Amino acid sequence: MHHSASASSLGPGGLDLSQAFFKPIQNTASPSSTKRHTKVSVIGVGNVGMAIAQTILTQDLADELALIDAKADKLRGEMLDLQHAAAFLPRTKIVASVDYAVTVGSDLCIVTAGARQNPGESRLNLLQRNVALFSHIIPPLAKYSPDSILLIVSNPVDVLTYVSWKMSGFPSNRVIGSGTNLDSSRFRFLIADHLDVNAQDVQAYIVGEHGDSSVALWSTISIGGVPVLSFLEKQQIAYEKETLENIHKAVVESAYEVISLKGYTSWAIGYSVANLARSLLRDQRKIHPVSVLAKGFYGIDGDVFLSLPTQLGRGGVLGVTNIHLTDEEMERLRESAKTILEVQSQLGM
Amino acid sequence: MHHSASASSLGPGGLDLSQAFFKPIQNTASPSSTKRHTKVSVIGVGNVGMAIAQTILTQDLADELALIDAKADKLRGEMLDLQHAAAFLPRTKIVASVDYAVTVGSDLCIVTAGARQNPGESRLNLLQRNVALFSHIIPPLAKYSPDSILLIVSNPVDVLTYVSWKMSGFPSNRVIGSGTNLDSSRFRFLIADHLDVNAQDVQAYIVGEHGDSSVALWSTISIGGVPVLSFLEKQQIAYEKETLENIHKAVVESAYEVISLKGYTSWAIGYSVANLARSLLRDQRKIHPVSVLAKGFYGIDGDVFLSLPTQLGRGGVLGVTNIHLTDEEMERLRESAKTILEVQSQLGM
Amino acid sequence: MHHSASASSLGPGGLDLSQAFFKPIQNTASPSSTKRHTKVSVIGVGNVGMAIAQTILTQDLADELALIDAKADKLRGEMLDLQHAAAFLPRTKIVASVDYAVTVGSDLCIVTAGARQNPGESRLNLLQRNVALFSHIIPPLAKYSPDSILLIVSNPVDVLTYVSWKMSGFPSNRVIGSGTNLDSSRFRFLIADHLDVNAQDVQAYIVGEHGDSSVALWSTISIGGVPVLSFLEKQQIAYEKETLENIHKAVVESAYEVISLKGYTSWAIGYSVANLARSLLRDQRKIHPVSVLAKGFYGIDGDVFLSLPTQLGRGGVLGVTNIHLTDEEMERLRESAKTILEVQSQLGM
Amino acid sequence: MHHSASASSLGPGGLDLSQAFFKPIQNTASPSSTKRHTKVSVIGVGNVGMAIAQTILTQDLADELALIDAKADKLRGEMLDLQHAAAFLPRTKIVASVDYAVTVGSDLCIVTAGARQNPGESRLNLLQRNVALFSHIIPPLAKYSPDSILLIVSNPVDVLTYVSWKMSGFPSNRVIGSGTNLDSSRFRFLIADHLDVNAQDVQAYIVGEHGDSSVALWSTISIGGVPVLSFLEKQQIAYEKETLENIHKAVVESAYEVISLKGYTSWAIGYSVANLARSLLRDQRKIHPVSVLAKGFYGIDGDVFLSLPTQLGRGGVLGVTNIHLTDEEMERLRESAKTILEVQSQLGM
Repeated sequence: MHHSASASSLGPGGLDLSQAFFKPIQNTASPSSTKRHTKVSVIGVGNVGMAIAQTILTQDLADELALIDAKADKLRGEMLDLQHAAAFLPRTKIVASVDYAVTVGSDLCIVTAGARQNPGESRLNLLQRNVALFSHIIPPLAKYSPDSILLIVSNPVDVLTYVSWKMSGFPSNRVIGSGTNLDSSRFRFLIADHLDVNAQDVQAYIVGEHGDSSVALWSTISIGGVPVLSFLEKQQIAYEKETLENIHKAVVESAYEVISLKGYTSWAIGYSVANLARSLLRDQRKIHPVSVLAKGFYGIDGDVFLSLPTQLGRGGVLGVTNIHLTDEEMERLRESAKTILEVQSQLGM
Repeated sequence: MHHSASASSLGPGGLDLSQAFFKPIQNTASPSSTKRHTKVSVIGVGNVGMAIAQTILTQDLADELALIDAKADKLRGEMLDLQHAAAFLPRTKIVASVDYAVTVGSDLCIVTAGARQNPGESRLNLLQRNVALFSHIIPPLAKYSPDSILLIVSNPVDVLTYVSWKMSGFPSNRVIGSGTNLDSSRFRFLIADHLDVNAQDVQAYIVGEHGDSSVALWSTISIGGVPVLSFLEKQQIAYEKETLENIHKAVVESAYEVISLKGYTSWAIGYSVANLARSLLRDQRKIHPVSVLAKGFYGIDGDVFLSLPTQLGRGGVLGVTNIHLTDEEMERLRESAKTILEVQSQLGM
Repeated sequence: MHHSASASSLGPGGLDLSQAFFKPIQNTASPSSTKRHTKVSVIGVGNVGMAIAQTILTQDLADELALIDAKADKLRGEMLDLQHAAAFLPRTKIVASVDYAVTVGSDLCIVTAGARQNPGESRLNLLQRNVALFSHIIPPLAKYSPDSILLIVSNPVDVLTYVSWKMSGFPSNRVIGSGTNLDSSRFRFLIADHLDVNAQDVQAYIVGEHGDSSVALWSTISIGGVPVLSFLEKQQIAYEKETLENIHKAVVESAYEVISLKGYTSWAIGYSVANLARSLLRDQRKIHPVSVLAKGFYGIDGDVFLSLPTQLGRGGVLGVTNIHLTDEEMERLRESAKTILEVQSQLGM
Repeated sequence: MHHSASASSLGPGGLDLSQAFFKPIQNTASPSSTKRHTKVSVIGVGNVGMAIAQTILTQDLADELALIDAKADKLRGEMLDLQHAAAFLPRTKIVASVDYAVTVGSDLCIVTAGARQNPGESRLNLLQRNVALFSHIIPPLAKYSPDSILLIVSNPVDVLTYVSWKMSGFPSNRVIGSGTNLDSSRFRFLIADHLDVNAQDVQAYIVGEHGDSSVALWSTISIGGVPVLSFLEKQQIAYEKETLENIHKAVVESAYEVISLKGYTSWAIGYSVANLARSLLRDQRKIHPVSVLAKGFYGIDGDVFLSLPTQLGRGGVLGVTNIHLTDEEMERLRESAKTILEVQSQLGM
C-alpha cells in the first residue's frame, strides 16, 4: 500500500483541469528537474516520530517527507492530517507507506520505531526484540537510500545506533544517534531558567550514554561565553559539588518526570531532532552532543557509540571536538562506555 | 497551583549565580519593560490545544504562552516538554496552571477544551455539558483579559462561539470561531493536489456552519488568480455538478476520515489556528473564513455565528467580505444559519 | 583572482587550531558530502545584484552564494560585508571572483549586469553594447553550470532573456526573465493600499513586455478570491475605464518615480527575485508572471520572450497558465510581442 | 510633508471599492485595535539606515516602520521601494516623513544620521557638527516616543550615545549604542572561517571603544563551549601573542578595508543592528557587546559609554555581565574609557 492523497478519491468523472489549465513549454522534460530536492524519511509515526515530522515541516527543512509505519491506518491518518495544512506551509511533498520503497533516495532517515517494554520483561529481552525489529528497518533503508545519513532516536539509543551501523554497512560518519542532544538542551534550559538568561546563550554539554550513566561536563558550562566554574572560582564564590550534581540529576530525572506526567515525551525531542536535521541537511557545521562511534576518543576502546560533542554537516559526522576533560570526567566517560559495551556484548553481534 | 520550572527544584544550596553574574545598570526599573509583549493563552492541552500551542511557539508568534487545563499532571508534563526545547527556539515565557490567574493580560485566548460525547448521548445533551463547561472558562478569561480576543476552537464551534460571546460580554468583533478555516484549507489542498499546483495559489472558500451543512462557494475558486468556473465555461469544458459536489463531500468527510484513522485531528487544526493567530496578533488584515456574528450579512437574521470570509487584524474582526453569491449559495447559507439557530434555541440562553 | 576570507591574511604564525581542535572520525571521506547543496550565483554586484544576494542570504535559500563582477575591489568589499554578518545568519558559504570558475555547479544563475545608457546614446546602441556584454557572461555560465537555470534581470529584460537563451543553448524551460513579476507586485500593492487589505490577498497580473507596452489583465484581479470586476458589475457599481488605466499607468511610472527619487531601484526587485528563486529552488510550483518563450501561447508567433503567468519549480518553467483574455487584452499582448520582436530583429541574432 | 502611498495619486474618479467590498461588523470600533503593535523608527536613510530598515522588514520584527531623513526625495524613493515589495512580505505599515511626528509612539528609535568628514576637517570639528545635528534629532524623538529605547549607530558611536543620553533625559537603560556588536561579529567570523566551524558556535567579545582602542577579550573566546586559550594551554600548543594581536588588528582594519573597497559598510551593520532590535523588541534577554553607561563597572569612573557584554530585553539594558578580565584586559579597557572621556570633555556638555 502506498498512500498519497489522490484525485481518484474524488470519484468518477473528476475534473480533468490539469491539462486544460496549463500548457507545457517546449523541452520541459529536463533531467535535472528533481535531482536536488531534499528528502527526509521518518520511520515510526508515534508521538516522537510525528513531533519530529511536524517540526521539520514547519521549519521548511525538506522538499519531500516520507512516513513509514507498520500500522497502515494510523499512518494514513497522520499523512492526511499534515497534508490538510498545505495552504499554511511552503509546499512539501508528503508521502506515506508501509512499504520502504517510498523512502527511496532519502538524504536523511530518522528512526523512531521501537518496541515497548512488556510488564515484567527484562531490559535485555526488550533490547533483543528491538534488534529484531531493526533487522526489518535498517537493511531496507540502506538498500533504498545507500547514500543517506541514518539518525537513530529509538531507545536504548546508543546500542541501537551501533546495531544500525552494523546492519547498514554504512561508514560510521553516516550513522548517528540523537544521544544526549536533548539531555544537553534540558541542562541548558535549567541553567538559563535559574539565571533568567536566554538558553541559546548557555553552552553546556552532557555526554556519554543517553541514560543514567550520562556525564555532565561542568568545565564546559559558559553563559554568553563566560566559563561559569572559573568565574565562580575567581569571584571566590563557594559552591557545593552536591548542588552541581543536583542539577545533573534534575536533567536525568526530567525525562522520567515528563513521561510520568503526560505519558510520553514528544515536543522537546521533536525540536531537538529537527535541530540536528538542519545541521546535517543545510551543512551547518555546528557542534552537537550526539552518539557517534567513540573508538579512539578520550581513551575509549571498542566499537561503542556514545555521545560526544560532534561537528555535523552535509556529510554527517565531520569531526569530534577535542575537549580537555578533568580526570573525573574522563573516568566517568569510560565507565559510561563500559556500561554500553556490556549490553552490546550480550547481543552477540 | 501555578507551575514554572524553578530553581528551587534544584534543591538546597542552589547556585546563586544570578546576582553575581550580572550587575544591574542604573535606573533599570523601567515601567515599560513588560508593557508591550504579546501573550497567548491556550485553554485545554489535549491534542488540538497542544498542536496549536506548539505551532505558535515554533512560528515565534508570542512572547508569553499560558496553558490552562483541569488536569494538573498532564498540564505540567506538556509545559515541561515545551520548556525543554528552549535552546532550539527564540525565548518565549511558558507558564501553566489550573488557575486562570495565569492568563492575566492575554492578547489572545484560544479555547480548545470540550467534553467528549458519551456512548448513546444525544448531541443536545453533549452541547449542554459543553455550555456548562464554558461557564467555568469564558467568565474568568474575560475577567483576567478584558481587552483580549477570544478564539473558539471547541465543537460545535459556531454555537460555542455564540455562547462565548454571550458569556464574555465582549463586543462581537473580539469573539471569533475557527469555523471553516480548516475546511477551506482542506478544500484548497484537494484542488491543489489534483492540479499539482501550490495550495497557496488556490483560493477557495467553504462558509456557513462548520459541519455537515457547510457551503462550498464554487464561484470563488481561483487558481493563481484565474477563476476556475468561468475558465471552464469559456473553454467550453463540460463538468458535472456531481463532480463538484464530490469534492465538497470529500472535504466534509476528511475530518471524519482522519479521526477514524488516527483517533483525532491535530496537526492541520494546529497550523490553521496558528495562521489565524498570526493575522490577529500581527495585524495582517488578511481574509479568512471564520465564524463571526453573521446578523445582517447575506440576508441572515438573528444572533447567529457562522463562517464568512472575514478580514482579521489586531482589533479582531475588521469587516466581512461582500461576495456575490449565487442564489443557490445564498439559499444554502441561510439553511446553514437556520440549522445553527435551531440548536441555539434549545439552549435557552 | 578568487577571494575568500582566509586565515593566511592573519599573517605568519597563524594559530593552527583546526587540526588540534577536531579529530576526524573514521571513514569521513564521504563522496556525498557536498553533493546536494544549493548554489546560487549572482552576476553583477550593483544595487540590484546586492539587494538580491542579501535577500537570498537573509531568507536562507542557498548553501553557497557566488558573486561575480568585473570590478574586483567593489566585489571583494561586498563579499566581506556579507561575510562579516556570519554570526547573525545560518551558515552560507560566500565566495566572489572576477573569474566565472567560481560559479561552477550552480543551481541558479541570476544575471543583473548591464551597461548604462550614455548621454545621447540610442536605445539600440545601448542594447547592442549589452548583447556584447552578455557574450562574455552567458557562455561561461552555461559552461560551468550546464544544468542550471538562468534568471535574467538586466534590462531590456525580455530581449536579453531571448539573447541568453540563444547564447546558452539551454532548453527554453531553463531560461527565465524576471519580467513583470515586480510590476505585478507594484500593481498588487497599489490595489491593496487603496483597499487597506494585505497585498498577499490581492491577485493581479501585469503581463507582456516589462516596460511601456505591458498589459494589465483586469479580468484576473481578485481580492481574497473575489474577482473584482465581476463584483463591481454585479453590485452595479459604475467605474470608469480611465480610472483603471490610471492604476496601470501608476505602476508603469512607479519604477521611473523611484529612480528619479533615489537614483535606482533595489529593495523591491531584490525581494521579487528572491521570491522567484524560492519557487525555483524549493520546487514550489507557484504561478508567477515572468518572461518565458511565448511562442504558441495566446496566438503569439516567433521566438519572443515576454511575461505570462507561469508555473515555476525545480525544473524551471513547468507550464504557462491558460487564462481567458478579453479580445482587447489579447490584442495588446500581441502588440507587446511585436514591439519586442522588432527590437530583436535589429540584433541580427 | 508626510508621505504614504495614497489612492489619491491614482487620479480623479479613483475606484471607491473599500466601502463596497467590506461591510463592517457591529461594534468594530475597539479601543484596543492598535494598542500593542510594534513600531520602529529609523533616522537617516543612507546605506546604513536602509540596510537596517530592510533587514528588520525581512525578518518581520515590526508592525510599523517609520523612516526619517532631511532629504525628502531620497526618503520618498526608499519608502516606495520598500512598499513595492508588499506582496512578498508579511504586512508592515511603512511611513516616511521629514517631520518627526511620524515617529510617534515608537518602541525603538534607531539613529544612523551623521555628518560626513569634510576634507581637512578635524575629528573634533566633525564631532561638534554631529552634536549639533543630534540636537535636532534626539529631543523630538524623546518628545514623540517618551517610552522608547534609543539605539545609536552613528559614529563616533560611544560619544554620540552619551550625547543622546544627555539630550533625551532618558534613564541610561534605554540609551544604547551599537558599539562593538559588529566588531565582535567580525571577530567571530574570522575565527570561524579559520577553523571551518559555524560562526554561531564561536563566542568572542571585543569590548571598549568602537574604534582603534577597542579591546579583544581573549579569555572569553570559546568554540562550541570550549574555551580556546585554556584548551591550547592544556594541549601544550604554543601560540604567539603576536598572532592573537594580528587577528584583533584584522578586525579593526576590516571596517576600513570594506570602506576602501566598496565606499561604505552596510550589510553587516544592517544584520548586526537588526539582531539587537530582535533582542530588545522580543525580550530575548540575550547578551550582546553594546555601548552602555559604564560607570561603576570594571573600575571605570565617569559618565562614559563604551561596549560591555550586556543583557538586552524589552526594558533595554537589563544588566552588565560580570566577566573576570585579566589585568591587561582591565588596563586596556580603562585606557579605552579615558580616550572617550577626553573627547567628551571637549564638548562642554
